[in-house]
Amino acid sequence: MDKSAIGEVLAAVKAQGRTSLTAPEAKAICDACAIAVPRQGLATSAKQAAAIAEEIGYPVVMKIVSPEILHKTEAGGVIPNLSKAADVRSAYKLIIDNAKTYAPGAHIAGVQIQQMVKGAHEVIVGAVTDPSFGKLVAFGLGGVLVEVLKDVTFRLAPTPREEALSMIDGIGAAEILRGVRGAAAADTQALASLICAVSQLVHEFPEISEVDLNPVFAGPDRAVAADVRIIVDFNPPAERFRPSQAEILAAMNRIMRPDSVAVIGASAEDGKIGNSVMRNLIDGGYRGEIYPIHPRLEEVLGKKAYRSVKEIAGAVDVAVFAIPARAVAGALAECGEKRIPGAVLIPSGFAETGNQDLQDEIVAVARKYGIRLMGPNIYGFYYTPKNLCATFCTPYDVKGKVALSSQSGGVGMAIVGFSRSTRMGVSAIVGLGNKSDIDEDDLLTFFEQDDHTQAIAMHFEDLKDGRAFAEAAARVSQHKPVIALKAGRTAMGARAARSHTAALAGDDRVYEDVLKQSGVVRARSLNDMLQFARCLPMLPTPRGENVVIITGAGGSGVLLADACTDWRLQLMSMPPDLDEAFKKFIPPFGASGNPVDITGGEPPTTYRNTIALGLEDRRIHALILGYWHTIITPPMVFAQLVSEVVEEYRGRGVNKPVVASLVGDVEVEQASQYLFDHGIPAYAYTTELPVAVLGAKYQWARRAGLLG
Amino acid sequence: MDKSAIGEVLAAVKAQGRTSLTAPEAKAICDACAIAVPRQGLATSAKQAAAIAEEIGYPVVMKIVSPEILHKTEAGGVIPNLSKAADVRSAYKLIIDNAKTYAPGAHIAGVQIQQMVKGAHEVIVGAVTDPSFGKLVAFGLGGVLVEVLKDVTFRLAPTPREEALSMIDGIGAAEILRGVRGAAAADTQALASLICAVSQLVHEFPEISEVDLNPVFAGPDRAVAADVRIIVDFNPPAERFRPSQAEILAAMNRIMRPDSVAVIGASAEDGKIGNSVMRNLIDGGYRGEIYPIHPRLEEVLGKKAYRSVKEIAGAVDVAVFAIPARAVAGALAECGEKRIPGAVLIPSGFAETGNQDLQDEIVAVARKYGIRLMGPNIYGFYYTPKNLCATFCTPYDVKGKVALSSQSGGVGMAIVGFSRSTRMGVSAIVGLGNKSDIDEDDLLTFFEQDDHTQAIAMHFEDLKDGRAFAEAAARVSQHKPVIALKAGRTAMGARAARSHTAALAGDDRVYEDVLKQSGVVRARSLNDMLQFARCLPMLPTPRGENVVIITGAGGSGVLLADACTDWRLQLMSMPPDLDEAFKKFIPPFGASGNPVDITGGEPPTTYRNTIALGLEDRRIHALILGYWHTIITPPMVFAQLVSEVVEEYRGRGVNKPVVASLVGDVEVEQASQYLFDHGIPAYAYTTELPVAVLGAKYQWARRAGLLG
Repeated sequence: MDKSAIGEVLAAVKAQGRTSLTAPEAKAICDACAIAVPRQGLATSAKQAAAIAEEIGYPVVMKIVSPEILHKTEAGGVIPNLSKAADVRSAYKLIIDNAKTYAPGAHIAGVQIQQMVKGAHEVIVGAVTDPSFGKLVAFGLGGVLVEVLKDVTFRLAPTPREEALSMIDGIGAAEILRGVRGAAAADTQALASLICAVSQLVHEFPEISEVDLNPVFAGPDRAVAADVRIIVDFNPPAERFRPSQAEILAAMNRIMRPDSVAVIGASAEDGKIGNSVMRNLIDGGYRGEIYPIHPRLEEVLGKKAYRSVKEIAGAVDVAVFAIPARAVAGALAECGEKRIPGAVLIPSGFAETGNQDLQDEIVAVARKYGIRLMGPNIYGFYYTPKNLCATFCTPYDVKGKVALSSQSGGVGMAIVGFSRSTRMGVSAIVGLGNKSDIDEDDLLTFFEQDDHTQAIAMHFEDLKDGRAFAEAAARVSQHKPVIALKAGRTAMGARAARSHTAALAGDDRVYEDVLKQSGVVRARSLNDMLQFARCLPMLPTPRGENVVIITGAGGSGVLLADACTDWRLQLMSMPPDLDEAFKKFIPPFGASGNPVDITGGEPPTTYRNTIALGLEDRRIHALILGYWHTIITPPMVFAQLVSEVVEEYRGRGVNKPVVASLVGDVEVEQASQYLFDHGIPAYAYTTELPVAVLGAKYQWARRAGLLG
Repeated sequence: MDKSAIGEVLAAVKAQGRTSLTAPEAKAICDACAIAVPRQGLATSAKQAAAIAEEIGYPVVMKIVSPEILHKTEAGGVIPNLSKAADVRSAYKLIIDNAKTYAPGAHIAGVQIQQMVKGAHEVIVGAVTDPSFGKLVAFGLGGVLVEVLKDVTFRLAPTPREEALSMIDGIGAAEILRGVRGAAAADTQALASLICAVSQLVHEFPEISEVDLNPVFAGPDRAVAADVRIIVDFNPPAERFRPSQAEILAAMNRIMRPDSVAVIGASAEDGKIGNSVMRNLIDGGYRGEIYPIHPRLEEVLGKKAYRSVKEIAGAVDVAVFAIPARAVAGALAECGEKRIPGAVLIPSGFAETGNQDLQDEIVAVARKYGIRLMGPNIYGFYYTPKNLCATFCTPYDVKGKVALSSQSGGVGMAIVGFSRSTRMGVSAIVGLGNKSDIDEDDLLTFFEQDDHTQAIAMHFEDLKDGRAFAEAAARVSQHKPVIALKAGRTAMGARAARSHTAALAGDDRVYEDVLKQSGVVRARSLNDMLQFARCLPMLPTPRGENVVIITGAGGSGVLLADACTDWRLQLMSMPPDLDEAFKKFIPPFGASGNPVDITGGEPPTTYRNTIALGLEDRRIHALILGYWHTIITPPMVFAQLVSEVVEEYRGRGVNKPVVASLVGDVEVEQASQYLFDHGIPAYAYTTELPVAVLGAKYQWARRAGLLG
């Protein structure tokens, strides 16, 4: 990349106070990044136009060049398919006339004469600047397809070559580029180079806010950008506050597992938030120091009270705020003087009620003293390894391996209720609310090194710093599953779109692609997030793609297979010897193959033998069980035999994921809970959920490269 | 339509023992149905080819005409874009040479010279013969789009004009046909005429098994079929057994609500199926006559036993079979002699175990005597208005308004368990198993006129007679919701596909479109089917599209709105006066608009006032409530106030659908059940399900034309 050439072009544009580049400027940039463009030249007279066309060779397309005319076609400024000099001369005059009519007084630099590139696939390559994720590159099929079907994909820039290749392969109509109906395949490597070049360009020159190469003609041996639009913005957004990973960890470890907690606004009065927080800390069994802060009282709920955090002799790791919004800033400054590293801001009345100024004020205080803020406008947080319930909600104590966070209090309470009801143990539940400071990437950095946490599930409506989140998630998801419920899928970004690419970058499409790129498992619904959180830490990581369904109900088998297709789980194609081995255990009218249909009237031994075989055979990597309630094998008998045989193989070091769907009368509910209690995800009256949780585990393992 | 012309062409093809038509034959058919084709002629020499081309006008495309060459392009038999006589002559020779090399010895009728139609949209119109649904028409965007994106839609033929129009509007890329990026819109009326013409053609001439008009060029004022392929099959499948609706009703009414039941194979021995059936009949509270049939016993469970049904003095409405498969045919003949109209065949060991002959045998016996068969290989059925449990499974007695059926026993047991657990009342649960005779359309016909049934939910893997089902469902769904869970979405039809259209007619796509055309609500999962069955009869039919979300949790509001988008529910755009009216009840930092966010800290009155306003205002047609657990408005307080205010308005004749999502600690589960018990679908820990059940109700109401 010829950086100085690019710099010169951009400097000239900046000097002229423009925000878009002319075609010749865009061509110069392309030349500097090795982006192939058609042969072309700029004509300022009809005669010159004809001469350039003769030089280039026919056919040519002619386009108006004027900084003021962005929508050239609309202005009658584009005439394609010209194949002789006389036509070129006429077209020149027509284009100039059209432009003058369309935009009287516009500065017209001339008319671009461009070789017409044909006989290839039309694609679009672009870049856009997202307020949360920063620079993103885009790829899609050009023309009508991208416009109507929105078949386009995004990645964070800079984009490694393999990600660029995955974009080309990842669009819905990817097959077209591989060549169908006798058409030649597109040059995938050339396209990937183009994507990488655009990615590098916007990465190195952040003032380039949008790039459109549209269309790009992708032939069997090259990719040529026939039209280039570049938009610049010389007023970069303010730098984000970004502590180092070490700083984040130092603060988060003290906040999340404190040895001492101050409660600012502690109250002895029932029903007050400051009273609930005190009670939850005490009743929850927290063993660190608890310091109630109260302007007058000597003690609160049996704990010595202080007028200010500054009066406390020992160190304080975190201060939980239960005072009105207007009093927060003052108390926060005292925390700063006391060198408390973190504040949990339960109060509402900040940005969420339109009071952005008050929020900015507390953030300024926090920055001054180096305090990290959780909230405001939150329920607080739970960290069960420390028996810590730093919240005004109900206490919670079922310990487990999954950490959850929510942007909204309602979702937080759903997490508490669901966890308690299903006996899902958690390591932490954290409310992030307004996210004035601490957000998802801080939590990810903490949970990454928290040995009590094996999986992380997060609900959010937006990411204040999507770039930081993506970086943290990509790292963490290599060894712990990260699950995300992104709410607000319907709200399209209200960002002003001047380029094609930007118009396509609806919020959700970008989130979808970036979450995927970061190895995050996306939950489509609140219930899915909760179920994934419940099951992913419970399921061992599969060693390969071969899934086998063993079912007592043929009907369940069909539905389970449907769900496997939805989740892209691969039903193992049964080798003949394995098929024979299963056949030995099932009645002659049962079906081997996959699903293995053992039929409904079988005794417990048939379930046991076939499941044992599924665990024993090394070629099988995961089992989905379908149980059908019969008198011969009642629900609890099934549940017990399954947990026994799975336990037996676990004891022998064989640890494959096993999930179960139970259909039958109400006893199947108890049997499902029994299986869950024994580490086997099992559901009654649904064939979809057990497959979904297995599918989510596979999705994570595949992206983390753990399937081998 | 010139039927005699078509008949003549087909007769000639039949006489020659061919199964596909040549291009000139296909053109003759098109002419006879007013399907526009390009100007064309058949040349048998190079000279004649040039003469025809001069006559037609350039450019032309030339295509080999040979009954043996179906894949013309592959054979090098198509050369497009010819624009002068010399080229036409050369092309003629080349095509003939290519054809001789490709298929030596093939009969070559000549070369077709065809006007090239350009500058229009490329679409495909076709027809196919489905083994279950019979004649179907297809429509999609042509070329690469239909091949790669499979963007195609099907309807039953004959196809009314409005259905044809809905096809054009219903494909994913429909927008393209409306004209994008300056392209002209396609002539929708001409396309609809084309679809209707194809539909009528295959309807009138069932021997035409496949039709491909591909591509059709759809311009702004016409639609021209540039290539036509017609496949015929002169060996029609055997006529299906189709009793009249009156005959179905007469039999089904006696079978489903019998005054007397014979149990063939009744047993006094615990654990036997014939014992379970007897017990369920007696313990279930059935008040009709019960006649146990047993070869030796004098009585079974206190009921006088008979050696044969023929010994019973009174009439018998239905016989439940609990004897081995091999004994069924004999006992069935006795039922025939006794003129019993229906047999419920619990035994397995028929087609499902490969024993098709035995099944054919009992069907033959049934046809001989006019007996309708339910099963074999089923759990039996329940009909609660008669306290009838004609099954060996557990008895079930929660009465309600929904009837369910399942092809599989496992799913049937899931229905029983789910129903009992959720207190979902049912009118009937029916196992259909092998469907040797009675199938879904028979049940639909019965439930249509059964006053105890207000909605019908059906699980099936295939439809033995899809055409009959579609006809019945289209009729029944006009006044009662019909829900279908079609399992086996992954299994593509193994039918041999010779045309493009047939290759696209994967089972699931056809089911999807035909179910929609029939007004059926398709459940995507077992749990969805059960939830829809539970809620659709409970929800009143909305009077219009305006949905309003009222939520105490902003986070839930966002997720509920997402779910509304998924279900295509229309969030009402709030008129200013209504906005103001809501604002009066909510705190200043709450959000009016839609969702109405009343904020989390509000007392019961705020919920009550806003919900009452939502019910009061006639512009609002449905309410979605989001509850967030707080101390100020605990879960049961919310549940009670909601059911009170809804009840109050119902008393005043205002009956709008209301659903609720409750997030919070475990008490929200009890509150949800309370709301359900008071006729309001309410769910804990999920924002998706309440919207899904409302969405399903809307989907049904919209298709039944009830929204006004």
